[in-house]
Amino acid sequence: MALLLIRNDNNYDSWIKALKAEDPKIAVHTPATVENPGDIHMAITWKAPHGVFEKYPELKVIGSMGAGVDHLFEDPSLPQDVPLTRIVDKKLSGDMQEFVLAQCLNYIKNLTGYTQLQKEGVWKPMSYKRVADVSVGILGFGTLGQAVGKKLQKTGFKVSGWSQSKKNIAGIKSYKEDALDEFLEDCEILVCLLPLTPATAEILNQSLFEKLPKGAYLINVARGGHLKDADLIAALDQGALSGAALDVFHTEPLPEDHPFWQRKEILITPHVASVSNAASVASQVVENYKRMERGEELLHQVSQEKRY
Amino acid sequence: MALLLIRNDNNYDSWIKALKAEDPKIAVHTPATVENPGDIHMAITWKAPHGVFEKYPELKVIGSMGAGVDHLFEDPSLPQDVPLTRIVDKKLSGDMQEFVLAQCLNYIKNLTGYTQLQKEGVWKPMSYKRVADVSVGILGFGTLGQAVGKKLQKTGFKVSGWSQSKKNIAGIKSYKEDALDEFLEDCEILVCLLPLTPATAEILNQSLFEKLPKGAYLINVARGGHLKDADLIAALDQGALSGAALDVFHTEPLPEDHPFWQRKEILITPHVASVSNAASVASQVVENYKRMERGEELLHQVSQEKRY
Repeated sequence: MALLLIRNDNNYDSWIKALKAEDPKIAVHTPATVENPGDIHMAITWKAPHGVFEKYPELKVIGSMGAGVDHLFEDPSLPQDVPLTRIVDKKLSGDMQEFVLAQCLNYIKNLTGYTQLQKEGVWKPMSYKRVADVSVGILGFGTLGQAVGKKLQKTGFKVSGWSQSKKNIAGIKSYKEDALDEFLEDCEILVCLLPLTPATAEILNQSLFEKLPKGAYLINVARGGHLKDADLIAALDQGALSGAALDVFHTEPLPEDHPFWQRKEILITPHVASVSNAASVASQVVENYKRMERGEELLHQVSQEKRY
Repeated sequence: MALLLIRNDNNYDSWIKALKAEDPKIAVHTPATVENPGDIHMAITWKAPHGVFEKYPELKVIGSMGAGVDHLFEDPSLPQDVPLTRIVDKKLSGDMQEFVLAQCLNYIKNLTGYTQLQKEGVWKPMSYKRVADVSVGILGFGTLGQAVGKKLQKTGFKVSGWSQSKKNIAGIKSYKEDALDEFLEDCEILVCLLPLTPATAEILNQSLFEKLPKGAYLINVARGGHLKDADLIAALDQGALSGAALDVFHTEPLPEDHPFWQRKEILITPHVASVSNAASVASQVVENYKRMERGEELLHQVSQEKRY
């Protein structure tokens, strides 16, 4: 019985080290070290090559090395009867909280705008907003979205959240699936933290932008696939949106000739909002490995139907 | 008996409107509308021309329209026997809290750095710091400094403060005057919120920078006069400091040929951290006017000796 790691970047060292530190008795493999594929009972992956799971007939669990599992579902040969898990980590959500808070403050205090004026040698005070006067809407109000929403609320922002089911959090307005339009009406800053599924792909499009208050600001820290790129450019040109902070893109790194690079109203960050750290998440991977061995219920299981 | 407003920018409308809204019975003048200088018992000013107070022999109170009073003391003909007041305003300190928090997060999440990489079309993830791992020192731990320190602490930063006398604030290390070196040792981010006095002028100089941890970050939101500009350039060149966010300058607007404009490690903002708003402070001006009329103790009086 063994645990297999598969990553598109082949960066295995920190993962092997962290898992061995957690429990040296577990046999940990990478695709290059597997001798008997039938030994592999659990695979933990990040953007594994499509079709790879077919090589391991005894897989009992497939896990994502991050919070997102969209990379698993992109593989048409993903086994449909194998339980899937994802990472839920305090450090991951802490990093996301801090990154989104930084972006919200950056926007309302015009810091990126001043960086650009400085390049042009221009001294021009701009009017700023106060935290207490700004409404932030969290599109995707699950575990991570709620953590971010609470942090923003604690800092003084007016916060609301949208998700499939209504959540009860003191001081935060929660909207459920059928109330999307109502939710959008009041979002001066819209933060996308949705899982990427067929239902949410390109949800950030012209029709959604038009339902936001004029001049709203978009922060996408979920997946590039949520955004219809051309619609963002059009919304900026028309003034429907005043700007956007994008941490994720359809293709990463963002291609050199992509029009986003040239837009002053867009702040591009290279997928850095929150990055899984092996040392921090090894214990939950090991815990799930042991639960699998004992046939117990897994932590952070993902619905194959809902895809999150 | 009348109240005189004097501003270097001649923007009087909002002040007259706000004061009249607060108490329509008070006679409010600008230098252009004074008929009998002996009627002026109180003057509220912002960077008034030097020597102007000599024209008003019956002044009983001179007040600053902002939190800082250094502009009053720069006038060699400031009467030494007239009580001085300044503004202490929740909105002013709220704005300062939010601005400094925005700058601290901007720095640890590299947002200005990414804005610059974007200009160059470069996709390059940089390592970021977590709030809980970063020590911020507040140089000038008075009313405003404490408000900012508490906000940063609430967000999760490790906070310390330096001021003449030791302050007791739960969870914040307070250093008094003779412990400056010890205070500086631990400041990965140094926030200057000192009053500008002969004792604090150019306190941000090479000798101070050398006492900070290597690669520390400077945020100056107090006065340009606190900083020795050439020493900052040298500290950046030598790596003693990794960068600075400057909101205030010796001369404002910052002259076109000033070397700060060209430095990528410096983020220039045009004195916008916290700007006195007439509507928000009119009530305390009126309150002091009435206290003066009744011969009562004034709010927010400033020591002519300490100069703050």
